Amino acid sequence: MTIDAALTELSTILGNRLSRSKSDLDLHGGSETHFPLTPPDAVAYPETTEEVARIVKACARHGCPVIGWGTGTSLEGHALAFQGGVSVDFSRMNKVLQLNADDMDVVVQPGLTREALNEDLRATGLFFSVDPGADASLGGMAMTRASGTTAVRYGTMRDNVLALEAVLADGRVIRTGTRARKSSAGYDLTGLLVGSEGTLGLVTELTLKLHGTPEAISAAVCAFPDMDAAVNAVIATIQMGVPMARIEFVDRSMAAAFNSYAGVRLPEAPHLMVEFHGSETGVAEDAARFGEIAGEFGADGFDWATRAEDRKALWKMRHNAHYASLALRPGARALVTDICVPISRLAEAVEETRQDIAGASVPGTILGHVGDGNFHAELMFDDTDAGERAEVMRLSERMVERALRLGGTSTGEHGIGVGKLGYMAAEHGEAWGVMGEIKRALDPQNILNPGKVVRLN
Amino acid sequence: MTIDAALTELSTILGNRLSRSKSDLDLHGGSETHFPLTPPDAVAYPETTEEVARIVKACARHGCPVIGWGTGTSLEGHALAFQGGVSVDFSRMNKVLQLNADDMDVVVQPGLTREALNEDLRATGLFFSVDPGADASLGGMAMTRASGTTAVRYGTMRDNVLALEAVLADGRVIRTGTRARKSSAGYDLTGLLVGSEGTLGLVTELTLKLHGTPEAISAAVCAFPDMDAAVNAVIATIQMGVPMARIEFVDRSMAAAFNSYAGVRLPEAPHLMVEFHGSETGVAEDAARFGEIAGEFGADGFDWATRAEDRKALWKMRHNAHYASLALRPGARALVTDICVPISRLAEAVEETRQDIAGASVPGTILGHVGDGNFHAELMFDDTDAGERAEVMRLSERMVERALRLGGTSTGEHGIGVGKLGYMAAEHGEAWGVMGEIKRALDPQNILNPGKVVRLN
Repeated sequence: MTIDAALTELSTILGNRLSRSKSDLDLHGGSETHFPLTPPDAVAYPETTEEVARIVKACARHGCPVIGWGTGTSLEGHALAFQGGVSVDFSRMNKVLQLNADDMDVVVQPGLTREALNEDLRATGLFFSVDPGADASLGGMAMTRASGTTAVRYGTMRDNVLALEAVLADGRVIRTGTRARKSSAGYDLTGLLVGSEGTLGLVTELTLKLHGTPEAISAAVCAFPDMDAAVNAVIATIQMGVPMARIEFVDRSMAAAFNSYAGVRLPEAPHLMVEFHGSETGVAEDAARFGEIAGEFGADGFDWATRAEDRKALWKMRHNAHYASLALRPGARALVTDICVPISRLAEAVEETRQDIAGASVPGTILGHVGDGNFHAELMFDDTDAGERAEVMRLSERMVERALRLGGTSTGEHGIGVGKLGYMAAEHGEAWGVMGEIKRALDPQNILNPGKVVRLN
Repeated sequence: MTIDAALTELSTILGNRLSRSKSDLDLHGGSETHFPLTPPDAVAYPETTEEVARIVKACARHGCPVIGWGTGTSLEGHALAFQGGVSVDFSRMNKVLQLNADDMDVVVQPGLTREALNEDLRATGLFFSVDPGADASLGGMAMTRASGTTAVRYGTMRDNVLALEAVLADGRVIRTGTRARKSSAGYDLTGLLVGSEGTLGLVTELTLKLHGTPEAISAAVCAFPDMDAAVNAVIATIQMGVPMARIEFVDRSMAAAFNSYAGVRLPEAPHLMVEFHGSETGVAEDAARFGEIAGEFGADGFDWATRAEDRKALWKMRHNAHYASLALRPGARALVTDICVPISRLAEAVEETRQDIAGASVPGTILGHVGDGNFHAELMFDDTDAGERAEVMRLSERMVERALRLGGTSTGEHGIGVGKLGYMAAEHGEAWGVMGEIKRALDPQNILNPGKVVRLN
């Protein structure tokens, strides 16, 4: 068999760094969400770019699928081996290769996680801004075009990856971009690879932008009388140009879930969590302006966290939203979905979603990076109940239809994987075909993460 | 002949909006810089996307080159018809199609210029930020991935184009992106088209980000004892995180050129021109911090422009740098080049360039958007003197070699066109080949702006 022939070659290259143990295969066949266990045929643990290129060349010779693996925290089944093949686990390629503090950039290997990078940067006065919640690998974050709580201020992975090294489907190693902050030198291959979910190349090195640690930070959480008031406060804040570093929404159910899971005592109401970065006076001014706007929309119980440990607790709670949601129904699986709409349509999109969930037979939470017009729903369902599964899939589908109807996108930050493949034609029309043409040009055998993002005939 | 057959078809489609008059051909065969007059075979003036698609389909049937034309202000021969064919002039597609003030975006046709757009936006409290100096068309700016004075704060065209409509080489019309502020839904085709210089598609509609007009603006110009001091003040300012809206460098020769051309009285010394956007207190704070840093590097003669008309005069002077440079040697042609390096290497890059120009037999100026590590040289040479032409080409080549040696790029914002095609292999290595593979996949006949950006075998 072609996959077996590839594995024999890979064994020679990697020795015991090619694993076929059941536990390893199961680990690389699982996900945090509702996809079935889908183990690969083997897991490879390369240590160098050269090894990655050799792995891909061997797989290309035998037509064996190659799927990159970071930390397994993606949400749409991106890294699952639905057609078998080799999972390339980057955990041994997790080093900071070069810190350029003067240029505020850093060159890293793809297996490094964002928290490990920030730990490494602690003494430098610099930080890496993109924060999807999970302690994901930086390679994986690039591949899903991740964003998260701070994108409203510092941008997404699209904005924070300056340059890449990648192994293409034929084993060629390319470098895209430079450490210069901008360039007009030809097609933006860095931008093409970011968000390509491992279907066009395996990233083996990333050059990332860093930002200066702000002189002052101030965060707050406040409750609103209803969802509409909270969302409209966000819209007004964005339109007034108040420079938010973070502006997060959680609905009433999510607030309740935090109370049980994180042991806090939030009013059972929709909340906003905000953070401001800047100079002492700038932060004070921004906070005051936000306070005024929020007040106009009936915000109450402002709880300001100016001490670092209070902020840390606040964002830790927020980052555990997925586990807090799951705890609403012990033993349940979560369907986690995300959409993004123009900010003027946000209130409508959130409200319709809330009504959908209110009418559902399963519990659900809504939360999101509303400064970008981006929000998530988590639906806790019984995996063994076909009716419940169908119901949550329908809810998720309705969210996507809503996003497209309101001029938005089927996913703001989670990506396509297999979970949202069915919406690509509706969102992109003919342009989806163009994505397929690019894929075919660069990976004619369709060995790189086959079955994701594009559909080839 | 194939081109003639195409023109016959185009006449039927466009009537007298297909022009073959000598004056029109010459106008569309010229450029502001050192490229020879290269007229197309005809100029088409479409009025709708549908017409653009029909033009491209007719040209595709006959293998006739199709070259987009905005305002003709590109600097590397991007829009010249080196292989003949049809110049598609977008001047009749110059409307604002939809202003979404609440979402701070606008949908426009490609022939609209940036100044016309901003004039249109005057009453809205919003503005379009990208400012390359010339009053270029927005379609052209997208195609060269233009940036300019405000990119340090608001980003380049890469950051400010949300969505596109484009006609592909086979006449298919696609839409890329949505009005949502971010998306992870598949390959970033918007980003692939931006900077593709009309080689992958003709843009027929753009959705652009807008920004809120700042509450307060303050600008200043100040002189430095030498170039090193000025450039190091920039580096320190960026590294301190002072939020600059603009930070422009001009060298001693450029200051002298402004004095003659714009009737100002700048000291004959290197200068920085800066601008701050924000709240009243924020701007005052930023200006004070910049003043301190600049003072440490010996800045003198601070001239603050807080009145709108003074700022307008300042930036008008800056935007006329090209004409002021040309006036240093009446009758001369200009070679205008731009490179971009990591900010830590900026002083070195500028100083080596200054020495090169000082040793040259022709006058030259240096200026640039130094907050991005990006700067330009303009070299005024006698077009009829082969020796001078060779000398300025060598100077330009040395600048690119310097940029690449220092970890930068051969062009920060002007693009490749034909002028910088010779450096693509050195800058991108194997990745240049990948650009060619994408071009071949999307334009197998190579009819869209052939001979630019990529080289096909």
